[in-house]
Amino acid sequence: MDLRLYAVTDRSYLNGITLVEAVEMAIKGGATIIQLREKNIGGREFYGLALKVKEVTGLYNIPLIINDRVDVALAVDADGVHVGQEDLPADVVRRMIGPGKILGVSAKTVEEGIKAQRDGADYLGVGAVYSTLTKPESDAIGLERVKMIKEAVDIPVVAIGGITLENAYEVMVKTGVDGLSTVSAVFSGDIEKNARLLIKEIERAFKDRNQSM
Amino acid sequence: MDLRLYAVTDRSYLNGITLVEAVEMAIKGGATIIQLREKNIGGREFYGLALKVKEVTGLYNIPLIINDRVDVALAVDADGVHVGQEDLPADVVRRMIGPGKILGVSAKTVEEGIKAQRDGADYLGVGAVYSTLTKPESDAIGLERVKMIKEAVDIPVVAIGGITLENAYEVMVKTGVDGLSTVSAVFSGDIEKNARLLIKEIERAFKDRNQSM
Ligand code: NI
Repeated sequence: MDLRLYAVTDRSYLNGITLVEAVEMAIKGGATIIQLREKNIGGREFYGLALKVKEVTGLYNIPLIINDRVDVALAVDADGVHVGQEDLPADVVRRMIGPGKILGVSAKTVEEGIKAQRDGADYLGVGAVYSTLTKPESDAIGLERVKMIKEAVDIPVVAIGGITLENAYEVMVKTGVDGLSTVSAVFSGDIEKNARLLIKEIERAFKDRNQSM
Repeated sequence: MDLRLYAVTDRSYLNGITLVEAVEMAIKGGATIIQLREKNIGGREFYGLALKVKEVTGLYNIPLIINDRVDVALAVDADGVHVGQEDLPADVVRRMIGPGKILGVSAKTVEEGIKAQRDGADYLGVGAVYSTLTKPESDAIGLERVKMIKEAVDIPVVAIGGITLENAYEVMVKTGVDGLSTVSAVFSGDIEKNARLLIKEIERAFKDRNQSM
């Protein structure tokens, strides 16, 4: 499972292109895993979107993770599902999807991270690293906390929330996480270029981390 | 499957009692099947509610149907799931829940009803019979259309939308449906009494229909 550049969709960022086109650009640029996250959408529309996105992720052999709706993930036979602390409990989801599917869980404390790992998570999404327009200051946990959670668990961790091309290297180096998760840093503007520059920063951080060890 | 009085939950009707208490009152009054329908609620909260409601439906041996969220239905091992035309497609849901669970589908045209039956529905929820505060005139299909749909399919049909104690008998007699589905006619005011009076009207209609045949 390659979590280095974990791109999360949001149709509100799309500028006259389809979600499938956007996802393909992200993959061409270097996204290593795709999460389909759509809020305020009926199950039928989510299912239809997921089927289409799966065609392109399948073509490039990139894992497709469905946010929140385990039923949609099962219905399209996605590669996995990602749940937050307000979604179905991780242990229940693991039982539903079986051992072969990827289970991601959001965590913003060490306790949540350890519990998620015990409940069967394959990776953690940890954040928000920084506050953003959609996530207020109170949701931001900072680099130090991300690092603490990463060190407390054995499963891989991606950092999420306020990631930009400018801070990507620093987040990777200062926290030791396995990858970065982002919506806007990939999907706003030139998607393929965004992904290409981000993955470069992430690879540079991996290299520097390895050398300093 | 006894669909005579199909009570659909809505926590906004509750007046200082818990949903579990409300469901128990409905069952004591005569509700024959319960649908848990909660909008704008996270998966974890929905799951928690469903687990609690299942305890009481299980105690009285009344089927519990989960609205929309197939994953929640699977997670709590509910008796079935109900999907509308904007939810996951009925044939996909049937595949997910297997042959042993109840699948209900909303239909407001003959075509939707026939398709739902073909896709594996065990019953149809047909309406809105009448317009209501929450369903505008444009959603109301009237008694004649309900009757047409009932006659076009072989699976049982419950009428929904604008059902009251006052019109319950007429709806039953004029459409030939197998039961009535309602939120407010059961859950606003004295729940147990509402259910008791409604089931009486429904039974009276069944009796009169049988005699006139
Ligand atoms: Ni959610």
